[in-house]
Amino acid sequence: MAPQKTVGILGGGQLGRMLTHPAALLGIPLLILDSGSYTPAKQTLLPPENHSGHLDGPFTSESHIRELAKKCDILTVEIEHVNADVLEAVEKEGLCEVQPSPSTIRLIQDKYQQKKYLAGKGIPVAPFDELPLNPSEQDVKDVVGKLGLPVMLKAKTLAYDGRGNSPLQSTSSEDINKSLEFLGDRPLYAEGWAPFVKEVAVMVVRNKEGEVKSYDAVETIHRESILRVCLAPLRGERDLNHRARELAEKAVGHLQGAGIFGVEMFLMEDGSLLLNEIAPRPHNSGHHTIEACHTSQFENHLRAILSLPLGSTDLRVPSAAMVNILGSSSSMSPIEAMRDNALSVPGAAVHLYGKKESRKARKMGHITLTAQSDAELHSYLRTVLFAQPDAADEWIDKISPPPPTTSHSHKKPLVGIIMGSDSDLPVMLPATKILDQFGIPYELTITSAHRTPERMVQYAKSAAHRGLRAIIAGAGGAAHLPGMVASETSLPVIGVPVKASVLDGVDSLYSIVQMPRGIPCATVGINNSTNAALLAIRILGTSIPKYQISTEEYSRKLEEEVLVKCDKLEEVGWEGYVKDVLKK
Amino acid sequence: MAPQKTVGILGGGQLGRMLTHPAALLGIPLLILDSGSYTPAKQTLLPPENHSGHLDGPFTSESHIRELAKKCDILTVEIEHVNADVLEAVEKEGLCEVQPSPSTIRLIQDKYQQKKYLAGKGIPVAPFDELPLNPSEQDVKDVVGKLGLPVMLKAKTLAYDGRGNSPLQSTSSEDINKSLEFLGDRPLYAEGWAPFVKEVAVMVVRNKEGEVKSYDAVETIHRESILRVCLAPLRGERDLNHRARELAEKAVGHLQGAGIFGVEMFLMEDGSLLLNEIAPRPHNSGHHTIEACHTSQFENHLRAILSLPLGSTDLRVPSAAMVNILGSSSSMSPIEAMRDNALSVPGAAVHLYGKKESRKARKMGHITLTAQSDAELHSYLRTVLFAQPDAADEWIDKISPPPPTTSHSHKKPLVGIIMGSDSDLPVMLPATKILDQFGIPYELTITSAHRTPERMVQYAKSAAHRGLRAIIAGAGGAAHLPGMVASETSLPVIGVPVKASVLDGVDSLYSIVQMPRGIPCATVGINNSTNAALLAIRILGTSIPKYQISTEEYSRKLEEEVLVKCDKLEEVGWEGYVKDVLKK
Repeated sequence: MAPQKTVGILGGGQLGRMLTHPAALLGIPLLILDSGSYTPAKQTLLPPENHSGHLDGPFTSESHIRELAKKCDILTVEIEHVNADVLEAVEKEGLCEVQPSPSTIRLIQDKYQQKKYLAGKGIPVAPFDELPLNPSEQDVKDVVGKLGLPVMLKAKTLAYDGRGNSPLQSTSSEDINKSLEFLGDRPLYAEGWAPFVKEVAVMVVRNKEGEVKSYDAVETIHRESILRVCLAPLRGERDLNHRARELAEKAVGHLQGAGIFGVEMFLMEDGSLLLNEIAPRPHNSGHHTIEACHTSQFENHLRAILSLPLGSTDLRVPSAAMVNILGSSSSMSPIEAMRDNALSVPGAAVHLYGKKESRKARKMGHITLTAQSDAELHSYLRTVLFAQPDAADEWIDKISPPPPTTSHSHKKPLVGIIMGSDSDLPVMLPATKILDQFGIPYELTITSAHRTPERMVQYAKSAAHRGLRAIIAGAGGAAHLPGMVASETSLPVIGVPVKASVLDGVDSLYSIVQMPRGIPCATVGINNSTNAALLAIRILGTSIPKYQISTEEYSRKLEEEVLVKCDKLEEVGWEGYVKDVLKK
Repeated sequence: MAPQKTVGILGGGQLGRMLTHPAALLGIPLLILDSGSYTPAKQTLLPPENHSGHLDGPFTSESHIRELAKKCDILTVEIEHVNADVLEAVEKEGLCEVQPSPSTIRLIQDKYQQKKYLAGKGIPVAPFDELPLNPSEQDVKDVVGKLGLPVMLKAKTLAYDGRGNSPLQSTSSEDINKSLEFLGDRPLYAEGWAPFVKEVAVMVVRNKEGEVKSYDAVETIHRESILRVCLAPLRGERDLNHRARELAEKAVGHLQGAGIFGVEMFLMEDGSLLLNEIAPRPHNSGHHTIEACHTSQFENHLRAILSLPLGSTDLRVPSAAMVNILGSSSSMSPIEAMRDNALSVPGAAVHLYGKKESRKARKMGHITLTAQSDAELHSYLRTVLFAQPDAADEWIDKISPPPPTTSHSHKKPLVGIIMGSDSDLPVMLPATKILDQFGIPYELTITSAHRTPERMVQYAKSAAHRGLRAIIAGAGGAAHLPGMVASETSLPVIGVPVKASVLDGVDSLYSIVQMPRGIPCATVGINNSTNAALLAIRILGTSIPKYQISTEEYSRKLEEEVLVKCDKLEEVGWEGYVKDVLKK
């Protein structure tokens, strides 16, 4: 290749390692600065041929940074706890370009300044306030007076994975002093408690021209303040994913420089989003993008800092998850056990980071799962989660619920069966039998166009964004439910005309099938919920190949059944057939 | 990690390079034997820490193979032109395990022996015959007498990418001598011409216990005997993909040892498949599996030889393609141009192999495309193909046809519109308008349940396997088409009851909607092909997110249109509205 810009990375850990892969694919020369010759990132890409090697030294050391800068065209970071002053100097002196901008790195290093800056730009954040250096008990009480309880006392700098945070539940001297002692003599600030219902993250890539592109939002699940699981895409109300991306893009739009940014947010009870914090680098909540998206966060980081076109951030699969492989002690065997377990899970991709030593809570690797549906994803995710050394049933059940008992709704359904009245249930039951027979996850509930209009609208509006792919709606008489639901969803709605007491079901059929132009309702025969379920399965088969195969097999079985009947007819004769077979 | 088995690879080219990535992910120590310290594979994974380095020497050298064997637990190959004798000796002496078995490598090295062996096991192959060493003109004429013309003269060994093959069109002395001269003094055999309609390949992974798993078949497209493009999955008749996989699995089942195998086949005019040849290693026709499948061919090779569980071979995307980046001269700039072009193509992943020197026809890298549909895939594939230095319009148009002119069928449709009679066309046209408006690729044709029953069956049976995801069928009167088509396909079929001359369309409606249990037909309102198209789009939206978004936008627009009418009504009053607006 013609000479490419050489990229220098401060930090040679797993994030650097995951940057080496796209660098190799695109032919981008990389030089890594970190202490040790066999760090995770140094293992997976040789330095460019015309260089003596990767650099061995601390990524905070001025002399090493300057040495790296001399050999590179552009410096970037895989960790924000770097020496921003040196980076700024290196850039000012014209020695080397630095991306993202050192000023952004410095801003983000101080969580208090970060929050203050973003709040000043109109980004919603939890209430927060500064604390003086070495705060007294009274200082803490004052801040609690403003922010209420519980309150989170936080170190302004060098805080990550829960280190540097201490929640305060009361203003008793004991509690306050315990917190202050835990945090040490670092500069602190306080954050009001954000009673979130979910944690959400969005990766945003930004190039030098300020163009931003976001990935689908994900749900992040922490345990003891450490990220454990990511679920992509974020499920919820119709516009939630969109709003999360918009907020993240807006926040990153206020920062300087190019690169990938991880934006963490809280989803509140009322549906609003608060920004928590931003990482100016690839982030653990974007690891799934390697398998699940067209262009990974790592490749997009390189593209952004090198002024190459940004890659598509679209998901290439319907559903994905990431599970961290954390050390539980110095023993490697739990790591191996998680790896070996994942090798038997379809759709699981193991990523070990090449770290030679394990310790509690150290990130040793991760596992990505991709699947054709949430139900499939979570069934495999359960297997992966149970292989964790600290697996806890209740915690896992909350993330990936176990399959339901018979005659109950699945928690990750692909098909929703609804009906206007419990009296329609007998007509709709055959649909459940078919879906059970095909192993399709579904939910069943009652919602009436006339008696529970709001519930119906709410159901229809959220259906697609909860992961459903078809709705079967049964109704009789002036049968409005299927058409009304179709008006409030983008999913295909299958209407089952239920035969009421008069008119033999023709009223229901006409009410469902004769929709106005613009809103289609897929209508099946009167009382024929069997066909509604089979149609739903055909629809699922367009995105999940195994259901297309099941449909072909089902048709073959129907054919065989008729052929068996023909043999019987031949055997017993038609009069005998009517007497012996049909009358039974 | 606890000590893992160390794998030694003979060959350090691009296939070795692509093996290093899963090795790093799974923590598998690798040692590579090849001449040079900076070969493609050696660039992307350091040797294990306790080893002095990768081995520098020819992979055919006995001493180097023995040195590698001493340092490894298992040897494998990324090229079959290795020294099988030494591998056999190394294994017999108990120095090191070798996978796949050296006997398999030796069998495959000799294309004539390979073919003879497979034919002996009942695998269908093109007719072939041996030639004596240094054949005379008469020897060639004799073999032509048996196999006919044209005939392919082939070197038994060391033939790949078209090297070592010479087609013979006549038995003129001039032609024969030109061929023999081209092939030199290597041992030769002759193969009868297989007038194939497509070339097909299947990757098969086999573990030591003889368990085999195949990937979906792909179409391989060659130019001047070099693989240029792969399309996954193979499109065609209902059982073609299945038959190709079955044949490939059967053939690999007759070989010894573990690993991944690339099986190349010819698809003949009559639908039959002939095996062409097998490669006992990762293969160019499986490169798309890195992005497009749950477990790549490279990872599955390592899993197989290390007795780890085989990974899922399922596609994780509906549609994928691979395009080789070939050198056209010693200049690197066409390689860069292809890379830079691909960076702007959504869903394109660039893989450069780190080769420092380009030459004509050298494999310098490849580009993988993944997409939600064939239509999307081919629109991007065209862009990638046109960036090739030897791009030829006609060749590209055959692979990825340009979009159709208005009122003509798309070559890679997602929706099929069919009707029983051309008289139904005016009723069905609104469906085409909607699909055009949404930018959905569709085809339109006439097929009658009563007048062209065979054509109808043929259409319905192949529809899903050609990539269609929904069929819209319009019919009137005793309207059998939608239901009959539904009986022969696993796709969702949308029936449009066309109003005939009597009964106001009720006959058509009942004929379509009242299907027997087992075969569903999604029925819309009488003459309402608009809703049929909108329903098809909702179905597509379950697998292609952008169409779900379009549906939401369409509904929003419908709402806005009504609101505009309300304002008008308010403005002009209802009497004025009837006069001014409705009468127009």
